[in-house]
Amino acid sequence: MQDLILKQQMDAIGRAARAAATVVARASTATKNLALLRAADALERDREALIAANELDLADARARGLDAAFIDRLTLGTKGVASMAAGLRQVATLPDPIGAITDMAFRPTGIEVGRMRVPLGVVAIIYEARPNVTADAAALCLKSGNACILRGGSEAVRSNQAIAACMHEGLQAAGLPGEVVQVLQITDRAAVGELITMRDYVDVIVPRGGKGLIERIANDARIPVIKHLDGICHVFIDETADPAKAIAIADNAKTQRYGTCNTMETLLVHQSMATTVLPPLAAIYRSKGVELRGCPATRAIVSDALVATEEDWGTEYLAPILSIKVVADLDEAITHIARYGSQHTDAIVTEHHGRAMRFVREVDSSSVMINASTRFADGFEYGLGAEIGISTDKIHARGPVGLEGLTSQKYLVFGDGHVRS
Amino acid sequence: MQDLILKQQMDAIGRAARAAATVVARASTATKNLALLRAADALERDREALIAANELDLADARARGLDAAFIDRLTLGTKGVASMAAGLRQVATLPDPIGAITDMAFRPTGIEVGRMRVPLGVVAIIYEARPNVTADAAALCLKSGNACILRGGSEAVRSNQAIAACMHEGLQAAGLPGEVVQVLQITDRAAVGELITMRDYVDVIVPRGGKGLIERIANDARIPVIKHLDGICHVFIDETADPAKAIAIADNAKTQRYGTCNTMETLLVHQSMATTVLPPLAAIYRSKGVELRGCPATRAIVSDALVATEEDWGTEYLAPILSIKVVADLDEAITHIARYGSQHTDAIVTEHHGRAMRFVREVDSSSVMINASTRFADGFEYGLGAEIGISTDKIHARGPVGLEGLTSQKYLVFGDGHVRS
Repeated sequence: MQDLILKQQMDAIGRAARAAATVVARASTATKNLALLRAADALERDREALIAANELDLADARARGLDAAFIDRLTLGTKGVASMAAGLRQVATLPDPIGAITDMAFRPTGIEVGRMRVPLGVVAIIYEARPNVTADAAALCLKSGNACILRGGSEAVRSNQAIAACMHEGLQAAGLPGEVVQVLQITDRAAVGELITMRDYVDVIVPRGGKGLIERIANDARIPVIKHLDGICHVFIDETADPAKAIAIADNAKTQRYGTCNTMETLLVHQSMATTVLPPLAAIYRSKGVELRGCPATRAIVSDALVATEEDWGTEYLAPILSIKVVADLDEAITHIARYGSQHTDAIVTEHHGRAMRFVREVDSSSVMINASTRFADGFEYGLGAEIGISTDKIHARGPVGLEGLTSQKYLVFGDGHVRS
Repeated sequence: MQDLILKQQMDAIGRAARAAATVVARASTATKNLALLRAADALERDREALIAANELDLADARARGLDAAFIDRLTLGTKGVASMAAGLRQVATLPDPIGAITDMAFRPTGIEVGRMRVPLGVVAIIYEARPNVTADAAALCLKSGNACILRGGSEAVRSNQAIAACMHEGLQAAGLPGEVVQVLQITDRAAVGELITMRDYVDVIVPRGGKGLIERIANDARIPVIKHLDGICHVFIDETADPAKAIAIADNAKTQRYGTCNTMETLLVHQSMATTVLPPLAAIYRSKGVELRGCPATRAIVSDALVATEEDWGTEYLAPILSIKVVADLDEAITHIARYGSQHTDAIVTEHHGRAMRFVREVDSSSVMINASTRFADGFEYGLGAEIGISTDKIHARGPVGLEGLTSQKYLVFGDGHVRS
């Protein structure tokens, strides 16, 4: 009975999203931008109320003894509100992908064939208790002409509803239906189970959060999922690397931020470069408090490195820990990445063109880099404007997913009375 | 126990496909083309043996009393073998999509970001007893750098194995592993159940065949599916249509072939054009033996049209039957298509630019056409060279799916020691 009521509620939400998707798909660029700008204004105007709602969520979270990292993600504050508003305005400045017609070309029959970019329809986003994601995700979906159903962590429910009210004010000001952005108020976990199986109403699911959450959703979903599970990123310092570049990149890829999915977790070093780059790198890592775990060849050079076990090569530390392996050659590096990597982001440092191109061709990751830090794997850095997530899958979108990843292309055929013979 | 053995067999096939995928992903264009051309040669050389294997399948099918259409699809013959060989050679002439680097552009940080086209990995194709699909599908997967697992209807098992032997000869001649093309010999239906849930080994599923088969696979799959269920295609003759073009297109879209998914099933006519175009069209359809089913307004003009029921508007006849509806305006036409269509292919006949563009923007189908017959919705006609299928979904591929639809794009980042600040 409970299940039936939930199913009916979710069906109603799905139907409303589908209807709203038809409207927003046809909305002009000006209309969508107006909604974004008005929502940004509303967020700033309601700053105190937003912070008050967020404080209620925070008080509950603290009372439940949730950890500091959790509290940090949940906290909005003045800066968080300003950042959400700035995010909405930034998305308003991005080019509108919808309606773009490309590749129109005549065929021998005389018809002209090309493609037009269209929204996906309804995007469901499932995320943890991070209220800023509510505004960011809604903005990207709206600009790309999609309706969205947002399901944030239940610990942020009051913050999310306050943000949703501002989004709705923007939509209303632009004459768009409020159902273009629906924030689930149902905190029952079973609602997620419904959401990820409503094939008639939801076109794609974007889960954001820990590996456990994403794995569960990917297993149970009956709808395509845009996701990445792990970020086990590698930097390979080749025999022909410029040592200064290699040291700068290996330092930055590990230490610029520890908790991000594009942080290097394993450093691979060509055997003939090991004595050149490992001592200075070890000194840098040591000074920054990074724990090193190495293979025997590494430990012969870096005597204070701990022993790296088989498990280390497949671990995303998300912490100041680095595993290091000395490899015989490029082939061993590529094989190691294929075996232990997570197809997220991998880089080679080399001055040799042929080896660089072999690496980018043969390493099967969503981002492959030559002489650059893995930390660049990011929607903003790539010029996408913002990202809804990163995909390590190959279907539909691969790598950072921006507005284009929330769209599809249909075929256009222009004739003048043409028939097929 | 039976289940366990099957699962182990399928796992072994999946693992072999994954390993072969790594090799074929790196294969040069020349290597892949050589495999295709040598396989074509083998098919022609073994023509008699192929026809003999096919005759055994045909004898069984006839003994089982399978209908004429089934027998027709199963029959290879001299022409079928020649056509398969020609198909392989044609795919060899297509540009290789793999490795293409596009959109490399500098970012403000100094890194250069772009994309490289890569194979999907392992493609599983599930189809009915049509042996020609074995060669066609294998060729497209191979050229796009993918390994494939082919599961054709069990009634064609001997034909398919004979074709597979020729494909393997081609692969071997090019130094590629035979597991690049695996044709399932297991005719147990449970094998399909395993195949569509092996998420570690299969990247995408392409089902081809009847709606029932495709629906079942889409429901049970745990892997993305490229598919279309129905082809309920419309032609809308607008108020400003040129009558001669309208008549030519409405004739061709229905009668050029009856059994294809891009055949028009419902004709929509603007009320102010109905008396102009319906009488001559009815005469043409009558002369070709097409049964007409109309709305009341249609029957007032075409007196011998049968009554179209609610069910007619949602039916893919795949037969010489046409439903006709007179509509008040463009809005009603778009609404009708949204409600009853299958997002496959829909066309407007109009001389009015604004209405034409509204139609292409607002009709949410994989192909939308202006003044052209729906019969053009086809990979060859669009210049894709060949197609593995047509997708009416929006994730990954939409419309006819050629080589590009069997690929993905990864990001490339070129730096010269660049780090993120």
